[in-house]
Amino acid sequence: MLRSLPHPDEQALGGALRYRAVVDALEEFFDASGARAAAYGPQYVELWRELRRNTTGGKLFRPRMVIAAFDGFGGPNDDAAGAVPWVGAAFELLHTALIVHDDVIDRDFVRRGKPNISGTYRDRARAAGVSEQDAEHRGLSAAVVAGDLALFYAYRLVDRSGVDEARRGRLLDLMDEALFASAAGELLDLDYSGAILIPTVDNILSMARLKTAVYSFEVPLKAGAVLAGAPDSVIQAMGDFGREVGTAYQIVDDLLGVFGDTEETGKSNTSDLREGKRTVLVAHAAATAAWAEMAPLFGSAELSEADAQALRAKLEQSGARAYAEDLLAQHVNRARAVLARPEVPESLRRELEPVIDIVLRRGR
Amino acid sequence: MLRSLPHPDEQALGGALRYRAVVDALEEFFDASGARAAAYGPQYVELWRELRRNTTGGKLFRPRMVIAAFDGFGGPNDDAAGAVPWVGAAFELLHTALIVHDDVIDRDFVRRGKPNISGTYRDRARAAGVSEQDAEHRGLSAAVVAGDLALFYAYRLVDRSGVDEARRGRLLDLMDEALFASAAGELLDLDYSGAILIPTVDNILSMARLKTAVYSFEVPLKAGAVLAGAPDSVIQAMGDFGREVGTAYQIVDDLLGVFGDTEETGKSNTSDLREGKRTVLVAHAAATAAWAEMAPLFGSAELSEADAQALRAKLEQSGARAYAEDLLAQHVNRARAVLARPEVPESLRRELEPVIDIVLRRGR
Repeated sequence: MLRSLPHPDEQALGGALRYRAVVDALEEFFDASGARAAAYGPQYVELWRELRRNTTGGKLFRPRMVIAAFDGFGGPNDDAAGAVPWVGAAFELLHTALIVHDDVIDRDFVRRGKPNISGTYRDRARAAGVSEQDAEHRGLSAAVVAGDLALFYAYRLVDRSGVDEARRGRLLDLMDEALFASAAGELLDLDYSGAILIPTVDNILSMARLKTAVYSFEVPLKAGAVLAGAPDSVIQAMGDFGREVGTAYQIVDDLLGVFGDTEETGKSNTSDLREGKRTVLVAHAAATAAWAEMAPLFGSAELSEADAQALRAKLEQSGARAYAEDLLAQHVNRARAVLARPEVPESLRRELEPVIDIVLRRGR
Repeated sequence: MLRSLPHPDEQALGGALRYRAVVDALEEFFDASGARAAAYGPQYVELWRELRRNTTGGKLFRPRMVIAAFDGFGGPNDDAAGAVPWVGAAFELLHTALIVHDDVIDRDFVRRGKPNISGTYRDRARAAGVSEQDAEHRGLSAAVVAGDLALFYAYRLVDRSGVDEARRGRLLDLMDEALFASAAGELLDLDYSGAILIPTVDNILSMARLKTAVYSFEVPLKAGAVLAGAPDSVIQAMGDFGREVGTAYQIVDDLLGVFGDTEETGKSNTSDLREGKRTVLVAHAAATAAWAEMAPLFGSAELSEADAQALRAKLEQSGARAYAEDLLAQHVNRARAVLARPEVPESLRRELEPVIDIVLRRGR
C-alpha cells in the first residue's frame, strides 16, 4: 500500500491562499465531470462521485510541492500563476490514479479507515447478494475504470492549465517522467513482494523512489520550478532535493512501521512485520547472521504481539535500526546540501526547509 | 470481452503506404520506450515487450478509420499528413489500453488464442510455483500497470504528433470524448453483466456504442476529418456515420455469436449463449412470451450443443433474429444516408463505403 504522506502545515508550506486555489480547481473539475457524466446514466455520476470522494479532502501534499517551488522561486508575480492550481490539481489526480490502481494490485479495500473505490463497489455488490469472490472482483473492476479516468485527466489538466506552449511541453515531459517511473516502481514492488529472497537495501530504496518519490516529491517540485520560469540548474536542484527527501521519507516510514509509537503515528507498528513488508530494516537484517532466527517469524500471518516484540529486539541487536537511522541522517544532510547550493535562492530555501522538518517530524 | 474487429482489406481502406506509416510509428514508439525502460531493470523492458506484442501485429482498424477519413477528404496534400500515422498509432494504443483493462475486468487470460498480458504473467508466476489464485492476481496486476502505460501514451502520442496547435487541441478533445465514453460503457457493461433482469435493446446498443463504437469508429473518423481540416459539418457527418456503422457492427457481432457459421467466422456460436451474454437478440427475446422457456438454458455453464440448438430455434421463432436483422438493415441504411449528405465529398464517400461492406461481410 502506498502510505499517505505527512500533513504539511498550511502556513509553513504553500500558503493557504494557493492551497485553496487547488481545492477550487479540483472542485471545478469534478463539478464539470459530474455534470458531463449525467448524460451517461446515474451509475457514471456515482463513479465520478466516488472518484471525487477519493481525491478531495486529502492533504494535497503533491500540489503543495508544486506551490512551494513556484512561490519559493518568486513565482507569485509570474504570469504562470494562474496555471499553478491546475498543475497542482493534476498531480493530485495522478496520485489518486496511482493509489486506486495500487489498491487493486494490493487487493486493499480500505484506505484511511474508510472503504476505497474497490471497497465501496464490493460492499454494494455484497449487499445485492453477489458472492464474496465476485463482489470483490466487481469492486476491483470499478476501481480499474476509476483509476483510468483519474490518470487520463491528470494529463488533461496539465494540458489545459493555460500555461504557455513552451512550459506546457516541459510540464507534460515531467508528467511522463513521473508515470514512466511509477509504473516501473509498481512492477518492481510486485516482483519483490512475491520474491523469496529479500531484496537489498539499494533495491528497496530504488523501488520506493520509482514507485512513490518521483511522482510525490521530485516531479512536483520540478514542475513548480518550471512554472516559475527557473533556470535548469534550479530545476535540477529541485529534482535532487526531492530525491533525497523522498528517500528520507521512505526510511522514516519503514522505521515508524516497526518502531513507531502507534499513539503518535496512528498506525500499526506490527502490520509491516506481519505482512512481511520489504523494508530497509529487513533488507539490512537479512544480510546478517541474526536473520536465521527472524525469518520464521517475519511475514507470518499469525504473528503475536510477543513475536513482534522479539522481532523488534532482533532488528535492534542486528544493527538494522541504527543502520536505517544513520542512512536517514545521510539523506537529510544531502537534502540540506542541495538547498545550500548557490543557485538556490534564499526564498526557495526558506520554502523548502519545512519539507525536511515535516518528513522528519513523523519520526519523533 | 471486446471482440476484435473485421480485417479490412488493405487496398480498400486507408492504403498500404499510410498503413505502413502507422506500423512504423508504433515501432518507433516501442523502440524508444523499450530503450528508456532499460534503465529501470529487465522486468520493465519485459513489460514493454509484452505491451508491444499486444499492440502491434493487429489489424490497425482504428488507425485505418483515421486514414480513411483523412485521405477521403483529400488529405494527402495537407500539411498535417505527417501527423496522421502518430494519431493513428495513438488510437491503436488507446485500443490496447482498453482491451488490456477490459480483460482484467472480464478475468480473461487469453486473446485470439494466445495468452494476453494477464495470461503471460499468470503463467510465469504459476511456473515459479505461486498458488493459482495468487498467480492469476499477479497476471491481472501486471496488466493493470501495462494498461495504464498504454492509456497515458495514447494521449501523449496525439500530443506529440506534430500537428498545429489548433488541431492538436481538437484531437485531444476527441481523445477525451473517446475515453469518457468508453469508461461509461465499461461501467454499464459491468452493471448489465451482473444484473438479473435482461436490459432492453436500447440499453444494450447504447452500452455497446459507449464501450466500443465511440472510440473505434466515431472518434477516429472525426479525428481523420479534423486532421484533414474538414469543416464542422463533415466532422459531424463522420461522427454520425461512425455511430451507425458501429451499431451495425455490434448487431452483426451479436447475430454471428449465435447464428454464425463457425467455419467462416472462426468463432464459437455457442459461447455467447453459454456465458449469458446480453445481446440484441436476447434483449428482444426477453420481452416475449417465449422467454420463459429460454431463461433456464440461457447463461448455463453446462449448455449442451442440443440446448444451444434449441435456444437458436427459439430465438428464430420468437422473432428475435428477424428483429435484429431488420435493425441491422436500418442502421446500414442510415449509414449510407449520412454518406449521401451533400457536405460529404465524393472522394470521402468512396473511401468510406467499403467500411460498411467490411462490417457486413462478416455476416455472410
